[in-house]
Amino acid sequence: MPQLRVALAQVNARVGDLDHNAALVLDRCREAYEAGAHLVVFPEMVLTGYPLEDLAMRASVVAASRAKADALARTLAAEGLGDLVAVVGFLDHAEGVTEGPGVPKNAPQNALAVMHGGEIVARQAKIHLWNYGVGDEIRTFVPGDVLHVLEIHGTDVAMVICEDLWRDGIASAVRASGAGLLVVPNGSPYEADKDDVRLDLCRRRAVEGDCALAYVNLVGGQDELVFDGDSLVVDAEGTLLGRTAQFVEELLVVDLELPAARRLMPPTDTRFAGLRITRTVLSSDPVAPYEPVAPPVLPRLDDLEEIYRALVVGLRDYVEKNGFRSVLLGLSGGIDSTLCGAIAVDALGPERVFGVSNPSAYSSEHSRSDAAELAKRTGLDLRTVPIAPMVEAFQEALGLSGLAEENLQARVRAVVWMGLSNQEGHLVLACGNKSEVATGYSTIYGDAVGGYAPLKDVRKTLVWELARWRNAYAEAHGETPPIPENTISKPPSAELRPGQLDSDSLPPYEILDGILDAYVERDLSAAAVVAEGYDPQLVERVVTLVDRAEYKRRQYPPGPKVTRRNFGRDRRVPITHGWREHLVKD
Amino acid sequence: MPQLRVALAQVNARVGDLDHNAALVLDRCREAYEAGAHLVVFPEMVLTGYPLEDLAMRASVVAASRAKADALARTLAAEGLGDLVAVVGFLDHAEGVTEGPGVPKNAPQNALAVMHGGEIVARQAKIHLWNYGVGDEIRTFVPGDVLHVLEIHGTDVAMVICEDLWRDGIASAVRASGAGLLVVPNGSPYEADKDDVRLDLCRRRAVEGDCALAYVNLVGGQDELVFDGDSLVVDAEGTLLGRTAQFVEELLVVDLELPAARRLMPPTDTRFAGLRITRTVLSSDPVAPYEPVAPPVLPRLDDLEEIYRALVVGLRDYVEKNGFRSVLLGLSGGIDSTLCGAIAVDALGPERVFGVSNPSAYSSEHSRSDAAELAKRTGLDLRTVPIAPMVEAFQEALGLSGLAEENLQARVRAVVWMGLSNQEGHLVLACGNKSEVATGYSTIYGDAVGGYAPLKDVRKTLVWELARWRNAYAEAHGETPPIPENTISKPPSAELRPGQLDSDSLPPYEILDGILDAYVERDLSAAAVVAEGYDPQLVERVVTLVDRAEYKRRQYPPGPKVTRRNFGRDRRVPITHGWREHLVKD
Repeated sequence: MPQLRVALAQVNARVGDLDHNAALVLDRCREAYEAGAHLVVFPEMVLTGYPLEDLAMRASVVAASRAKADALARTLAAEGLGDLVAVVGFLDHAEGVTEGPGVPKNAPQNALAVMHGGEIVARQAKIHLWNYGVGDEIRTFVPGDVLHVLEIHGTDVAMVICEDLWRDGIASAVRASGAGLLVVPNGSPYEADKDDVRLDLCRRRAVEGDCALAYVNLVGGQDELVFDGDSLVVDAEGTLLGRTAQFVEELLVVDLELPAARRLMPPTDTRFAGLRITRTVLSSDPVAPYEPVAPPVLPRLDDLEEIYRALVVGLRDYVEKNGFRSVLLGLSGGIDSTLCGAIAVDALGPERVFGVSNPSAYSSEHSRSDAAELAKRTGLDLRTVPIAPMVEAFQEALGLSGLAEENLQARVRAVVWMGLSNQEGHLVLACGNKSEVATGYSTIYGDAVGGYAPLKDVRKTLVWELARWRNAYAEAHGETPPIPENTISKPPSAELRPGQLDSDSLPPYEILDGILDAYVERDLSAAAVVAEGYDPQLVERVVTLVDRAEYKRRQYPPGPKVTRRNFGRDRRVPITHGWREHLVKD
Repeated sequence: MPQLRVALAQVNARVGDLDHNAALVLDRCREAYEAGAHLVVFPEMVLTGYPLEDLAMRASVVAASRAKADALARTLAAEGLGDLVAVVGFLDHAEGVTEGPGVPKNAPQNALAVMHGGEIVARQAKIHLWNYGVGDEIRTFVPGDVLHVLEIHGTDVAMVICEDLWRDGIASAVRASGAGLLVVPNGSPYEADKDDVRLDLCRRRAVEGDCALAYVNLVGGQDELVFDGDSLVVDAEGTLLGRTAQFVEELLVVDLELPAARRLMPPTDTRFAGLRITRTVLSSDPVAPYEPVAPPVLPRLDDLEEIYRALVVGLRDYVEKNGFRSVLLGLSGGIDSTLCGAIAVDALGPERVFGVSNPSAYSSEHSRSDAAELAKRTGLDLRTVPIAPMVEAFQEALGLSGLAEENLQARVRAVVWMGLSNQEGHLVLACGNKSEVATGYSTIYGDAVGGYAPLKDVRKTLVWELARWRNAYAEAHGETPPIPENTISKPPSAELRPGQLDSDSLPPYEILDGILDAYVERDLSAAAVVAEGYDPQLVERVVTLVDRAEYKRRQYPPGPKVTRRNFGRDRRVPITHGWREHLVKD
């Protein structure tokens, strides 16, 4: 059987930065070539970064992507890498499409360029566009209807892109094409437990397609998305042959024994399930037999570590890709801001993290001492700016009371943070968690202020779990646990009035998070939530809070998605609406 | 030829409030019946409100909509309206759809219920889903593939929904069906000049379909959308027979002479262009001949009045549908906040509008006197809260300078507004205009604070035009012009440092708005903008400002869409991206 050495390039692309991404592809091609690879596969839209959103419909972006792809193919050959076959995701233009309602402007296509011998020898467009969850591709891409098969060193290789793999039917077309290897570039964002789903999917499709399958994904943060990599190769029986580490750039090199080309070759331009199958011969001679190397099969991280790393990578890339040098956050001594501080230190190093303690008349002594303890343990910079003088100045003019007075304190703190941010150049972090964002238990323009919100998709009970995990990880590695014990064990409080506790306003977080999981992440009706055993009055109260907090969520900073359904672009509900999930009759 | 009296019910539905909407439909059916109508047509999804966004995928919402539609059909009959044929937009469930990737959860459908004799006698699903601009329907609806024809009093009536009308092909299917009338319920948001486009489209489709056409649209504000109504009827030659007023609820009654049923009746279940054409007989006997009544053909508003009314309706419905009694806004004496004040008074009445003047050390005397003059002319409530004491309290702790000091003043004002909002219950208005939102010429958490931003989609030059128009309108109607002359004529300034003018930071607004129109609304590349005659360095500066301000725009409050491309949901670009439209080489 013909042999093929395949390199999977798991890389961190930058959206819109074509020069950077082209240089990245060139470097990895060189590395793959030096490793003896015959074929190197990059993630979906690696040349432009992903997702481009509406930038994909700009004529200038489409033209730049196509020109850069042509130039890159020439450069690869000029650098002596022309024999290597490189599959490079890019933004292409669909030919022969008439503009009109429902056709994306400038007919952009999410495509793969197959680079070989200084040229683009084939272009494979994405067939099934991703248009659910955080995917919005139908508004920006024209779908393809062709399945390309490449003959490389005497074996047939087919290619499809990300969502194509999730849909039934494509694997049968690959089987009909006779290809022995299916390569699948992806831009598949992280969410908890998705790695298990992906491996199962790859195994199933390999068996259905009777082909080995190489799955290549992006890594790195992009606004609210974090790409986790998790690239892998299975053989035609679905056996896992190689798998990358998560959340880091890596080049995985795999040796495959594949069926000889044309084992089932259908006539040229056969149509199968609406697809035209077409074929391009790059090289028919098998490579000389060689001793295969066993690739690594790296284990998955455990659940908490995986989420923690997603938060760290998401924050780091948001800061760096947006050109900030440092972050600033209010440190109250509470669990949310303390965990954010630990994540920031892990992402950027302590010298790039600036904490501010803003004690008020209602702040406990431990709010200061716990913040100081975090600074001592991690080395982040901490300063103290008491807010009483500013609060008093407002109160002399306004005489606010109740909730208005509570919110005033939170907003005065935010003005301090933003002032320091403007003066010194830090990105401000909003430290609220998903349970607060869900219920609106935050002050808009107060603690909700910031450029990025690391815990936006982390429910409160998971905040505690991650804090405990991070400390245990430090202990297991002989380091100082960053989170003060008292911060983990004390009852949560906003400290905006004397003796205030979260439990005055909200149910216990174990119960609240259970209801939120059912109502938000699993999209159950309120009645179905009650059927899971929760108190009807409490459920009605919580779902009403969630429904009414949408106006706050719209103005909340972006934060990394780690669950199946966050409060970013994958849950779109109106602010203004009269829908109520009534359970309790008046 | 058979006669038919058709009523077009242009109404203001509330998203998610099924009880309210069902009562509205019942009232209008009664009114149509009393006016002698045989057929009454309501807008797209009138029963649930539109757009529902992801609420459409909740099983509880789908079930409630279907149950409410059944109940409404029974109620109509019970109230003696069973002979009237009512076409009512609602959320339906697609039968026989297998769940999976790309299929909206719970298989919801954007559909019409034809109510007659106490039952739903036909269900017409939307065939072409709207998925560009502000439309996002592919993620939430299963498309239909059936064209229903109803025989009503001996004439054939077909129905399609909104986007179906915009696509080529449907009119030919209607022609093939032999229907003499096509009714088209819509949820078509306002944008400037769209009324001309709509009339042309209706005329064209009527001629293509060889049928009269009744176009029925929603009115009212829904988050960032404003529906303008503009319902109309054309005959099969495309002649305009009747047209409603814009932006108000109305029942338009039109008498039509239509071809007898079955003039071209294809066999049952004929397929045409992928559609199955099906037929339901409701009544075959023509009505007794009667004297037709000529419907009104109301003239369109002129361009500025149309935009102004859209802003008024958008604000009024945002306030009322969200349950606020009043609004509060900072009044600087500048043109933006003054125009917002005038719009708010027109929308809500002066007793529901609260202005706050927040003079600082850098405020001019006219900033106070112009605000006072607005209050005097309109009757809105004005109070003064000087910000020097609060600014000093921050500065003693922080010692900010430059831009950080400027922003501090804007943020202290915002804390005052939000404090008063929380204490007294007003919705805060953000008064920034589209030119500022585009370039990021605003202080995040400062002047950008608010629940609603009336001028978010109004470029600065249009702000002045609308102010002049509003004053001229008042003069023409013998009223006091609301906007002080000095506010219109003085040079714009943020007044955050001594002698500051907008022109220190931005090009003249006539030029800036021209560049923004080309780059944002017409989506031209920077090079194409330069080709229109603008200075390359200025173009590069402006497009870089626009590209870098996305993080601010994401946290900007919602505001009414009045142009083809606003900064709400119809322009989706990443915050984090390295795309640069380079023109000037370093």
